[in-house]
Amino acid sequence: MISRQTLINQIKQKKSFLCVGLDTDIEKIPAFLRSYPDPVLEFNKRIIDATRDLCVAYKPNAAFYESRGVTGLQSLVDTWKYLPKDCLNIIDAKRGDIGNTCDMYAKAFFDEDASGMSFDAITVSPYMGHDTVTSYLAYPGKWVILLALTSSAGSKDFQYLTTGQGYLYETVIQTANTWASPDRMMYVVGATKSTEFTNIRKFAPDNFLLVPGVGAQGGSLADVCQYGMTKDCGLIVSSSRAIIYASNGEDFAEAARAEALKVQQQMQVELEKAGVI
Amino acid sequence: MISRQTLINQIKQKKSFLCVGLDTDIEKIPAFLRSYPDPVLEFNKRIIDATRDLCVAYKPNAAFYESRGVTGLQSLVDTWKYLPKDCLNIIDAKRGDIGNTCDMYAKAFFDEDASGMSFDAITVSPYMGHDTVTSYLAYPGKWVILLALTSSAGSKDFQYLTTGQGYLYETVIQTANTWASPDRMMYVVGATKSTEFTNIRKFAPDNFLLVPGVGAQGGSLADVCQYGMTKDCGLIVSSSRAIIYASNGEDFAEAARAEALKVQQQMQVELEKAGVI
Repeated sequence: MISRQTLINQIKQKKSFLCVGLDTDIEKIPAFLRSYPDPVLEFNKRIIDATRDLCVAYKPNAAFYESRGVTGLQSLVDTWKYLPKDCLNIIDAKRGDIGNTCDMYAKAFFDEDASGMSFDAITVSPYMGHDTVTSYLAYPGKWVILLALTSSAGSKDFQYLTTGQGYLYETVIQTANTWASPDRMMYVVGATKSTEFTNIRKFAPDNFLLVPGVGAQGGSLADVCQYGMTKDCGLIVSSSRAIIYASNGEDFAEAARAEALKVQQQMQVELEKAGVI
Repeated sequence: MISRQTLINQIKQKKSFLCVGLDTDIEKIPAFLRSYPDPVLEFNKRIIDATRDLCVAYKPNAAFYESRGVTGLQSLVDTWKYLPKDCLNIIDAKRGDIGNTCDMYAKAFFDEDASGMSFDAITVSPYMGHDTVTSYLAYPGKWVILLALTSSAGSKDFQYLTTGQGYLYETVIQTANTWASPDRMMYVVGATKSTEFTNIRKFAPDNFLLVPGVGAQGGSLADVCQYGMTKDCGLIVSSSRAIIYASNGEDFAEAARAEALKVQQQMQVELEKAGVI
């Protein structure tokens, strides 16, 4: 269980607000790992060992595990077991359903007795409204990370529609702020929209924002921090491919560490600049 | 592979547009099944055997299987294998992600070689825009069933926001109609909003609509048909709990059949009334 205060403490202690995204694709991991009983698990373990002092969160992407059926889900369960429990362990599942279905997704990701996994946080799609988050929030101390503004081309289709109360993504944040406090609710905000952070901070001054898209997807860390950082940091910046696939050789873990270290050092500069540390 | 025309033929032949929702909860199935190696699979098989001539679609709800981790996913894979391939096999997964993540979800549910499953259709959440459907549509003949208007209380939070082009759910339908033809795209429309069907038919005159919420959730089949049926039927009405949990005893499959038959007979009346058959 990672409370808001624990997360802030971790950030200050590690001088990092990095989340390592475990989007582990068996087609992309070094070939020599294929001789292990579970190549994906072996890859993840080595990535975790190499980065755990440099990041405050891990984020396995459910799709990459589900794509391999039962074998893949077993890798996810075993990866969850291996995740350092002092980090915020996020399942990037982008589920969005309601009622008894939502109860079942909560069991799938928050109830170790039921599914073998108990992540600290889950990403959720807001389309179906408040019923999409209540089941998750019923688990004491667990987090919902709601999609607000994403960085893909398709974000323009709906998220930027004007609703009368502003853009749809603004309304999502304003509405979801009535569902839970910043102790339990974060928002996903795509890093390629760094100037939008100023605007988002009007509606979500205290919420942590999960920011994918720095690195491979082209966002600028400095911009994100300039416009989005709060006195508590308020940011978790996720990087996946740029770190985990930094090398495709036997040195992949060392290369991942070097990449994570580079990001952590940039983050330290930003944290100092903003007076967080 | 179930084309639009095959689906229409099936509806006419079976005089039914029923979808049986396999929201199978191990806590709710008859106790005597617990002695089977996989009680959920055994339950599903008997439900399928008892209803396959009365329905045109099956819709396992992914959450119910995921809630039991690897064991649950194995039940889902084995259930998929058992599903009649002349029915439209829908995975109710409500995924909503983009890019390479969406590619992975498509593998998870559409690529038997990768995951052990190849459903005909998947439910998808539209929030992230057109990038959320492209991976699925890349599989020839597979369907996307996009959330449009849902029947829960939370649907009011965002789906009824006025966007300048009408309600958000109307904009979702209008926009998604530019992504795929009615041969590949359906919409989820909650049955408790039957008067809204008139409106939806303005934007989606030819699309099949997947309508949950008839039965346990309180929607009226007659209303749905009055406002939503087209000359090709254009409706798939889903019922889950009312059918699969019709009895909790050894006669559960017979009871499920009796319940499905009741619905099929009502559907036949509606199909005749509308001149579809």
